[in-house]
Amino acid sequence: MCEPVEDDKTSADYYFDSYSHFGIHEEMLKDVVRTKTYQNVIYRNTFLFKDKIVLDVGAGTGILSLFCAKSGAKHVYAVECSQMADMAKEIVEANGYSNVITVLKGKIEEIDLPVPQVDVIISEWMGYFLLYENMLNTVLYARDKWLVNNGIVLPDNASLYLTAIEDAEYKEDKIEFWNNVYGFDMSCIRKQSIMEPLVDTVDQNQIVTNCQLLKTMDISKMTSGDASFTAPFKLVAERDDYIHALIAYFDVAFTVCHKLTGFSTGPRSRNTHWKQTVLYLEEVLTICEGESITGSMTVAQNKKNPRDVDITLKYSLNGQRCVISRTQHYKMR
Amino acid sequence: MCEPVEDDKTSADYYFDSYSHFGIHEEMLKDVVRTKTYQNVIYRNTFLFKDKIVLDVGAGTGILSLFCAKSGAKHVYAVECSQMADMAKEIVEANGYSNVITVLKGKIEEIDLPVPQVDVIISEWMGYFLLYENMLNTVLYARDKWLVNNGIVLPDNASLYLTAIEDAEYKEDKIEFWNNVYGFDMSCIRKQSIMEPLVDTVDQNQIVTNCQLLKTMDISKMTSGDASFTAPFKLVAERDDYIHALIAYFDVAFTVCHKLTGFSTGPRSRNTHWKQTVLYLEEVLTICEGESITGSMTVAQNKKNPRDVDITLKYSLNGQRCVISRTQHYKMR
Repeated sequence: MCEPVEDDKTSADYYFDSYSHFGIHEEMLKDVVRTKTYQNVIYRNTFLFKDKIVLDVGAGTGILSLFCAKSGAKHVYAVECSQMADMAKEIVEANGYSNVITVLKGKIEEIDLPVPQVDVIISEWMGYFLLYENMLNTVLYARDKWLVNNGIVLPDNASLYLTAIEDAEYKEDKIEFWNNVYGFDMSCIRKQSIMEPLVDTVDQNQIVTNCQLLKTMDISKMTSGDASFTAPFKLVAERDDYIHALIAYFDVAFTVCHKLTGFSTGPRSRNTHWKQTVLYLEEVLTICEGESITGSMTVAQNKKNPRDVDITLKYSLNGQRCVISRTQHYKMR
Repeated sequence: MCEPVEDDKTSADYYFDSYSHFGIHEEMLKDVVRTKTYQNVIYRNTFLFKDKIVLDVGAGTGILSLFCAKSGAKHVYAVECSQMADMAKEIVEANGYSNVITVLKGKIEEIDLPVPQVDVIISEWMGYFLLYENMLNTVLYARDKWLVNNGIVLPDNASLYLTAIEDAEYKEDKIEFWNNVYGFDMSCIRKQSIMEPLVDTVDQNQIVTNCQLLKTMDISKMTSGDASFTAPFKLVAERDDYIHALIAYFDVAFTVCHKLTGFSTGPRSRNTHWKQTVLYLEEVLTICEGESITGSMTVAQNKKNPRDVDITLKYSLNGQRCVISRTQHYKMR
């Protein structure tokens, strides 16, 4: 019931386990922003799929492969490494697409694809904070190994953004809570809790500054190394307020569509299951309209658990009412 | 990122992993019904703890051990097998109880307790559906190995209840959803989803029948075998309605307190993090006031994953508008 195991093993098993359960797929399928966008991309751009060989990376229930098959694909290879692959096979059969869709159970890095090349690679690889779980590397691996010249990757563009929010109440509940738990000091857990970005929905009225583009990724050209980066930022306050956290979110675009299609996971857009990623600051910043928080964010794959993302945030505010300069380390796990 | 592993390994690792993370402890600590009840039991019944040797089984953050120390315990042994044990040690020190509380990291079945016997065993071992995760066995093991004659176990009483609810909307959303997912048949996943009891809060207005006591457990006397049982039930409709699910919930009591103390996780009580456990029925039952659903529930520890619970539900309704007799199998996992 409680076997000690190395972190990386636990992490891998949990990942495996979580995607084997239908619950996570239910959540993703019911994320209408996500699934409807993919559906629109595929159904409204049949010219991209008609008579094409498609590779679906991390197929899950096979929903994207089914969309592609219905959109006229010549053949779809749906690769899924979790136990859900068995369900995907049943689903493909139940819907009469066994002749068009081949479900391959295994890791992209290990499977034998029956064809030398594919025309289209489609994948819903995005994790929390865009890069959590690091499935992007798997998509890039597939792209370099199998995608034909001038083949397309869907989505082909992803952008990460940063902004700053007022969040006194929730920081109190999630972080400061540990300072006094039924009268006891559990601040050693506070240290852990502030290092772990919180995935939750933020109200747009909490936004105090502009939203800064941190990084744009061209999935069709980038290398896996481009997923680790340091990006500078400047967040200018649009009103006098307090700042308790910086939040990150991402947009995804399918630029090869007939009409530009995509979605945003930002706080001003309709909520998705990705929500936003909240990075709490050690101290509260007292910021005046026009003042700016400047700094840089470094994002890197964790050495021990490739799925985990290490984030280093350097920031400083040199304001009338608050002067602060700090570096904080976070880990998405 | 996606290693195939045997189910039992995955399960054990996930269990290990989940309790190593502060998030699950945050949820339990913030369950005021749960934590305040334990606090009241300990603070208002100092005669049970003063100068006593206490064993805290599955101590987590150590909160119950801290309550006991503050209540005058001579010494508290806090046993925790997850990584959280390291935090518990820090917390005990930070609060100046290192001389009273000894945190032991490991499995109850494997640790060396520095004393031959303890006067009190306290534990918050209850899982979803009371028995999920099967930590009760660990408490019983500790009781038989270390509890002094006439020693006490807290809590010492747990009761499991069953009732029937109208739940058309949610059954549609959680179960029938799989019949048509963006136009595709994923009913093979429906089969999985209906076999898995759903842990969620039920509105008391959904209750259609009486609430039936299924099983009472005396933690101070029972054997681990008593946690597997078959219990008959008779649920009588209090109004004309439809029945989509049976729900189970439990009460816990501390009968050795000066004044009977405990809590219920039922739909008529304040919500706890245990919520209720919903077992969806294959077909909707059309029941008339006064008619009854009779049957039996069999609860057993899963052979492969001792943490998992197998539930077999036999039920029949012989009504004016609906005649049905069925057996359904569920698995808490």
